[in-house]
Amino acid sequence: MNQPYDRVYNFSAGPCTLPVEVLEEAREDLLNYKGMGMSVMEMSHRSKPFEAILAQAEADLKKLLKVPDNYKILFLQGGATMQFSMIPLCFLGEGKSADYMVTGAWGEKAFEAAALVGNANLAYSGKAANYNDIPKFDSIKLNSDAAYVHFTSNETIHGVQFHEDPTVAAPLICDMSSDIISRPVDVSKYALIYAGAQKNMGPAGVTVVIIRDDLLERIPAKMHPILDYKLHAKNTSMYNTPPCWSIYMCGLVYKYILHHGGVAGAHERNLWKSKVIYQTIDGTHGFFKGHAEHHARSTMNVTFTLPNDELTTEFVKEAEALKLDGLKGHRSVGGIRASIYNAFPLEGCQALAKFMWEFATKHA
Amino acid sequence: MNQPYDRVYNFSAGPCTLPVEVLEEAREDLLNYKGMGMSVMEMSHRSKPFEAILAQAEADLKKLLKVPDNYKILFLQGGATMQFSMIPLCFLGEGKSADYMVTGAWGEKAFEAAALVGNANLAYSGKAANYNDIPKFDSIKLNSDAAYVHFTSNETIHGVQFHEDPTVAAPLICDMSSDIISRPVDVSKYALIYAGAQKNMGPAGVTVVIIRDDLLERIPAKMHPILDYKLHAKNTSMYNTPPCWSIYMCGLVYKYILHHGGVAGAHERNLWKSKVIYQTIDGTHGFFKGHAEHHARSTMNVTFTLPNDELTTEFVKEAEALKLDGLKGHRSVGGIRASIYNAFPLEGCQALAKFMWEFATKHA
Repeated sequence: MNQPYDRVYNFSAGPCTLPVEVLEEAREDLLNYKGMGMSVMEMSHRSKPFEAILAQAEADLKKLLKVPDNYKILFLQGGATMQFSMIPLCFLGEGKSADYMVTGAWGEKAFEAAALVGNANLAYSGKAANYNDIPKFDSIKLNSDAAYVHFTSNETIHGVQFHEDPTVAAPLICDMSSDIISRPVDVSKYALIYAGAQKNMGPAGVTVVIIRDDLLERIPAKMHPILDYKLHAKNTSMYNTPPCWSIYMCGLVYKYILHHGGVAGAHERNLWKSKVIYQTIDGTHGFFKGHAEHHARSTMNVTFTLPNDELTTEFVKEAEALKLDGLKGHRSVGGIRASIYNAFPLEGCQALAKFMWEFATKHA
Repeated sequence: MNQPYDRVYNFSAGPCTLPVEVLEEAREDLLNYKGMGMSVMEMSHRSKPFEAILAQAEADLKKLLKVPDNYKILFLQGGATMQFSMIPLCFLGEGKSADYMVTGAWGEKAFEAAALVGNANLAYSGKAANYNDIPKFDSIKLNSDAAYVHFTSNETIHGVQFHEDPTVAAPLICDMSSDIISRPVDVSKYALIYAGAQKNMGPAGVTVVIIRDDLLERIPAKMHPILDYKLHAKNTSMYNTPPCWSIYMCGLVYKYILHHGGVAGAHERNLWKSKVIYQTIDGTHGFFKGHAEHHARSTMNVTFTLPNDELTTEFVKEAEALKLDGLKGHRSVGGIRASIYNAFPLEGCQALAKFMWEFATKHA
């Protein structure tokens, strides 16, 4: 069963698969975008065509996530790693504390960056169990006076995901890098949402920030321009030259998702895709072992182990021969990680499940 | 005289024209890079093919600029604006001062960011004359004990450029965003060179830093990861997900420049291209007035004014009809700015010069 353009099933954790239709459109316009006589890569960010691309991407993301009017959408650089620092630098002022709910490697890094700035409180850590679970927010003691509460909705390395929007007293900040626009969320419950593009939205190099207006007023004066959400908001993401091509590609992806049932449609497909693999894990009588607790299982990153390292190596090798690419798990969990973000096709999950059955039958 | 793909002559100040051959190669591989079964945009940054792309880009840039072995090349995010802050945060420690040579709007911003951190000294400013000139370095009193001396080799808005590598006692830091790889430089005279890609190297979204090893040792501990050159160097630009596509495009451009005579070849073409326009300015008996003093004229951004605003507006309008795009000058200088970076073709400069003669003859 060959894919178009002889492409492989790309299970990479990000950067990762983009929709074929989106890539085709980008290719079509690569040397001359819509008769403008130049590529999007060559376009002045101050030109009308690029301003239109940016405005449309913003409007489409707003529509996808039903973003209320008292929020700004920013397209920044530096990835989630930049956000790990910008958030405490802008919001964790002296005499304040912030609560961090850490359910994996990315939350850990966010917490460490905050600790460089001020009083970061590790309100929850799942480290002892190698991050195989998520807590209930209402079981954790949080400081209602905190500058903010930070959590990571989906942890790519460990494959654990929050499936509901939490309710907390303090402003809620969420790293949605790996599950943004993969499921409906109630944006109004969040003060700030951020996400690197390279899982569900587009190529690496752009980071989306959705920030509530009142937060912008909390930013201290004399912030470094590049670190200042308020300055970026005031200049509609154009204080400095934005990563134009990555924004353009995100825009094409937003349009694609809107045309395919929005985030509700994406969510339905993602539930089904992940179920195909999780059912296989559970059906092989312990040959495959899921890393995450059932209720914390991620629809984006399916993590599981095999009986031993030799079988894992063999599994990855045989999978590659079947054009199932990028399945090797992260060293901190081992085993296999199948990353199946929005653009990853159901057929790829079915092909993996079929191979898993065959492999388990052969080696059980 | 139509260009391939019905493209225009794009005089934008950046992002700007890329070589047609480079865009064609990117298009060719857009859905399946060299038989890998995926686009470069979809490739894990930890994969062998992307590691090879990054290593080749680094090696080719090293070759182009003859970078000595005691320097690291980094591909970062955030543009020059991010560097404006990273440099003082990493190197302008307490009790130290840094000298800033400001010859235009970008140098001004670099200076302002440094002033947020510590003792930034405005060693030279050309502001009084609206940045129409560059000083001789040896005529300026610089502090030999300074943490560093910072300057901007080419100012895009005002169109002034240093044509020689200065010699100073303190570590020399240069923003080469708008003229990197457009001319030979002696890298060994610099402690740190940085450049946003979007003028001479590739699409917006990646910033090249060339940093001497001993500088890495001066960075204080507990720096924020995203702001820490040492951490980026230790992880060969892969501490966090790099802007893969932009790096790939830069790599294609480096290869293109290497195949076309290297930076010496580019320099020869750039001198000739800019001469075609400057000669026209000087030959119209004052109808066009160059903004920059002759010895400071930039080979990258040719800035000039017309007798009045009406004629300027008419000039831009008629030029656009001839597919000479993006000529409107920045508001702080007014008039016309023709940005003619490496990839801008000689034919475009000749077409502009021809139109300038005709326009001057008609309206003189």
